[in-house]
Amino acid sequence: MFDQISIIGCGLIGSSVLRRLKKNKLAKKVLSYDNNKSVNEIIKKENLSDQVASNLNEAVKNSDLILIATPLSSFENVINSIKDNLKFGSILTDTCSVKIDVNNIVSKMKIKNSTWIPGHPVAGTENSGPKAGQFDLFNGRWTILCPDKSIEESQIKKAYSFWEAMGSKVKIMSVEDHDKIISLTSHLPHVIAYNIVKTTMSADEKTKNDIIRYSAGGLRDFTRIAASDPTMWKDIFVNNSSLIIEAIDKFSESLDEFKKAIKEKNSEKLLEIFEKSKEFRKSIIKAGQDTDKPDFGRK
Amino acid sequence: MFDQISIIGCGLIGSSVLRRLKKNKLAKKVLSYDNNKSVNEIIKKENLSDQVASNLNEAVKNSDLILIATPLSSFENVINSIKDNLKFGSILTDTCSVKIDVNNIVSKMKIKNSTWIPGHPVAGTENSGPKAGQFDLFNGRWTILCPDKSIEESQIKKAYSFWEAMGSKVKIMSVEDHDKIISLTSHLPHVIAYNIVKTTMSADEKTKNDIIRYSAGGLRDFTRIAASDPTMWKDIFVNNSSLIIEAIDKFSESLDEFKKAIKEKNSEKLLEIFEKSKEFRKSIIKAGQDTDKPDFGRK
Repeated sequence: MFDQISIIGCGLIGSSVLRRLKKNKLAKKVLSYDNNKSVNEIIKKENLSDQVASNLNEAVKNSDLILIATPLSSFENVINSIKDNLKFGSILTDTCSVKIDVNNIVSKMKIKNSTWIPGHPVAGTENSGPKAGQFDLFNGRWTILCPDKSIEESQIKKAYSFWEAMGSKVKIMSVEDHDKIISLTSHLPHVIAYNIVKTTMSADEKTKNDIIRYSAGGLRDFTRIAASDPTMWKDIFVNNSSLIIEAIDKFSESLDEFKKAIKEKNSEKLLEIFEKSKEFRKSIIKAGQDTDKPDFGRK
Repeated sequence: MFDQISIIGCGLIGSSVLRRLKKNKLAKKVLSYDNNKSVNEIIKKENLSDQVASNLNEAVKNSDLILIATPLSSFENVINSIKDNLKFGSILTDTCSVKIDVNNIVSKMKIKNSTWIPGHPVAGTENSGPKAGQFDLFNGRWTILCPDKSIEESQIKKAYSFWEAMGSKVKIMSVEDHDKIISLTSHLPHVIAYNIVKTTMSADEKTKNDIIRYSAGGLRDFTRIAASDPTMWKDIFVNNSSLIIEAIDKFSESLDEFKKAIKEKNSEKLLEIFEKSKEFRKSIIKAGQDTDKPDFGRK
């Protein structure tokens, strides 16, 4: 499919891509780059890349597809370092969870020779770093691509097949639609998970110990996504700020109505909310986006 | 330990207790009762009880321990039907998630011969009904007992050993402490989970389908506990109403502060919140209350 692929940033996502490329032999040559030496050591030790580049120029030279899987706050630096060294006809894409801002940053920077196609695999775990990667991380999940309308079909197809080769299903949408949907399915849940942990942590020391002890009553489910990579999430919250605020306001409005039903002990209203939620979970399982095993199958 | 044990209500919790009693041969005779015929059929078919009683009197007569595992709204009826037929020296206990209200209901009803010890195993899954039960549901989890100060030590010990035999760790506390802690570790998380589902479900049909499709970005974690038994949760919200409202208010106050940090793009504050949350998850895993496998180990 591609003769040469470069992966910039080898954390959870980057190293999962590297693992998949290697396992399924999807390119003649795979280069990788990370600005953290200890990350590069792990990539070398686990033999996940054909060449661990020592700088960004070396990393991208002659590559047909360049995937940036670094935190959003590093994009300007990364693009600046590579934009004059990209191969003619190559694809430049990324994995980050905010697309309007990243698209603005990259579009402004006048990349030469390469086609910029913003991308986002909606997959991951709460763990970060190169050891957390899994070759099957994208299996059955969705990757969203947000190419500008001016982009040639043949170039879009290349990015599309890349993610299909990762095991992912692919959907094309606008950066605006992406940021809106993901603010609800990912950013808002993270706000809420962080916030419930924040709320309970404000208790005194004795209560905090009790909270940890009895967390199996529900709280522990929230702590998983609240353990995600801090830098990555700081970038997301800063860069999708206004849509996230909008989602929080919707959540609060809905919470007020719910609180009213609890205060009034409105059994009928409460039952209605719970029955609908049960149905919603069933839809997610039916769509293949979660397991139907009780407790997520955890032991 | 006990010659005869009776289980009233054979859903997720009741049937898990039945499975454990049978597997480890913890009583000479186990009786069960459920007001739903199809539940009783399942209990008979799976041979989980020595005698499926046809009424509550028959179910509790001569039993040394009677466990009520029905929704809270049925307690008055259940206690009324059994209170004059309890064996002298027996233990009457329960499993429900609210203890102040249930204690008030039962204490008012002047039980004869039996010692009332309110209890709550902090364990469960999102599934309900007799088929959802698991013999190891209580393993490593905590059961909270809230005996009145006047209760004899020897009677408390009996209830204590019962839950230890279920695989549970046991903690004694007041009904007030129980309802406060559980409002934070279980009731608030359920409010929030139901509410985030409620918020996202208010979207139009097209958006709703997109939300289901991209739910692996975080949302799906919340839908698990939002799929719990509606009747049980309606009862909990109605009966622990004021403490739950208090917890919601704390949550909202904390959310306002968080929202401010997002609005102001306050990276430092955001990073601080995220780092602390990561630590909190580690504490829960260290306390044996969750798995350290990524994604809860789900596939």
